[in-house]
Amino acid sequence: MNSNVEKQYVVGIDIGGTNTVFGIVDARGSILASGAVKTQSYTEVENYVDEVCKNLLPLIIAHGGVEKIKGIGIGAPNGNYYTGTIEFAPNLPWKGVVPLASLFEERLGIPTALTNDANAAAVGEMTYGVARGMKDFIMITLGTGVGSGIVINGQVVYGHDGFAGELGHVIMRRENGRLCGCGRHGCLETYCSATGVARTARELLAARTDQSLLRNIPAESITSKDVFDAAIQGDELAAEIFKFTGSLLGEALADFISFSSPEAIVLFGGLAKSGDLIMKPIQESINANVLQIFKGKAKLLISELKDSDAAVLGASALAWELRE
Amino acid sequence: MNSNVEKQYVVGIDIGGTNTVFGIVDARGSILASGAVKTQSYTEVENYVDEVCKNLLPLIIAHGGVEKIKGIGIGAPNGNYYTGTIEFAPNLPWKGVVPLASLFEERLGIPTALTNDANAAAVGEMTYGVARGMKDFIMITLGTGVGSGIVINGQVVYGHDGFAGELGHVIMRRENGRLCGCGRHGCLETYCSATGVARTARELLAARTDQSLLRNIPAESITSKDVFDAAIQGDELAAEIFKFTGSLLGEALADFISFSSPEAIVLFGGLAKSGDLIMKPIQESINANVLQIFKGKAKLLISELKDSDAAVLGASALAWELRE
Repeated sequence: MNSNVEKQYVVGIDIGGTNTVFGIVDARGSILASGAVKTQSYTEVENYVDEVCKNLLPLIIAHGGVEKIKGIGIGAPNGNYYTGTIEFAPNLPWKGVVPLASLFEERLGIPTALTNDANAAAVGEMTYGVARGMKDFIMITLGTGVGSGIVINGQVVYGHDGFAGELGHVIMRRENGRLCGCGRHGCLETYCSATGVARTARELLAARTDQSLLRNIPAESITSKDVFDAAIQGDELAAEIFKFTGSLLGEALADFISFSSPEAIVLFGGLAKSGDLIMKPIQESINANVLQIFKGKAKLLISELKDSDAAVLGASALAWELRE
Repeated sequence: MNSNVEKQYVVGIDIGGTNTVFGIVDARGSILASGAVKTQSYTEVENYVDEVCKNLLPLIIAHGGVEKIKGIGIGAPNGNYYTGTIEFAPNLPWKGVVPLASLFEERLGIPTALTNDANAAAVGEMTYGVARGMKDFIMITLGTGVGSGIVINGQVVYGHDGFAGELGHVIMRRENGRLCGCGRHGCLETYCSATGVARTARELLAARTDQSLLRNIPAESITSKDVFDAAIQGDELAAEIFKFTGSLLGEALADFISFSSPEAIVLFGGLAKSGDLIMKPIQESINANVLQIFKGKAKLLISELKDSDAAVLGASALAWELRE
């Protein structure tokens, strides 16, 4: 009997600062069962792993047991693919270097791979999503921050140390750039994340006097969703905020194209769902800024994975790539 | 008899706008014989290929004949690795898309690979030079322009279209950036090439009034060599020009590290030979600008290949990677 045929499922675990979500996934990218635990409730990583396993194991058993599972994939902040460790993740309760992949392997006896969430998203898109069949693409995740996963020659770029692909921290404004959470100034993430959009809104509202629906909201509580809602109601200032954001992101993408000349750039996250409001300025800015030799070559695509499923699917996709 | 053992040499051909240099190279990177023709003398590419072959074939025969040659590698501006063509190279006499690799294959019956000169330099460094054994590094060539060859997972990054790795055209100054030969403004190459250094010299001399040995040279004829000569004589303005250049290059390298997290960055070309004058500001600028997670990780190295041999060696190294 061929043991490959038996192992028809994978497990995806997405570790966020607040919640950990996990699921059993088949080869077509359907989530057959899923569960969640609160990440912050477990100050000891062993207790955390116990709790995830306690919730996950019944789902595995209900789908034929451990022998049906090819592997576990984990997406986690500051995840190092080479070592299977989480290293100095500021938003997680466990300090230092945490050997998470081996903790799960020991508990469940299932091979486990781990990387950061944006790299996992790239593998998910390549396995189940809009980048199926592509050998060269760049995934950009637009969330609270800006993350990236780079695929070259069909492989995720992990770099020498396992941490490559931090395109949210490429410097876009070297003079008077915005202060970033990383301690430096002018990072892409300070402009093109959801929080960056809110920051742009506050800056523009303070610097100018023209009317805007956004003036009805206390400046400090404006979110990127508010800006979107105002823009679709025809608010010009809100539309301008998207234009600024998209234009700056396009400048960055034009540079990324000079690096790896990808077949496509895949955008994921709330901002990418803002339609022409954001996509049109991004595409115009790429066209205006990209080197002649690359003009018109890289496709600009939006992720096809459902927001709520994408993190688990991305993590699970890592497991298909595990060697027996 | 094992046919691999027989094929103990490769041929490297470096095509420049003025000269074409070629040589027969052994596995240790020794050039056993070499020759040259004037590129610009042949407006028809067929005549050019005939002339190169006429000069190359006697060298090949003197080293055991075509059956000893594993392959030919060609480094050429705008070279496309996937198709073996040179595409719209502004400094070469042949217009449009030129199928150079297949022209040589037809004439000589030897498998031929082709890429641009900076990618060839990266393969050369990986095969014979300071990047031996490295899987992840970035080669930066500092010459008239700034070129780059990126190696990830042991493979040169050619991208979707064969043209990836144009890091000389990443935008470093988005406001009031210098006009680049590519038609855009603020490219790395406008600051950190030999011509960029001369440009910085002219700008500083015009903007300031302090003494400098460089004021003895007519501004329009200042070269990066003049700036170097002045700097080693203790000229402060000249030293400042190197500091500016190195600092800006370090900013760029810090961003490149965020992309592929290489084990090393290898610098090649005249500027890289300027010692501490340039290397110290580059290293300081990398340290000051790189994302925390990558701090102190990527080594900054200088090519070990002799300037006069490097182009032929780089091109020849491509041929070792050819499949039988």
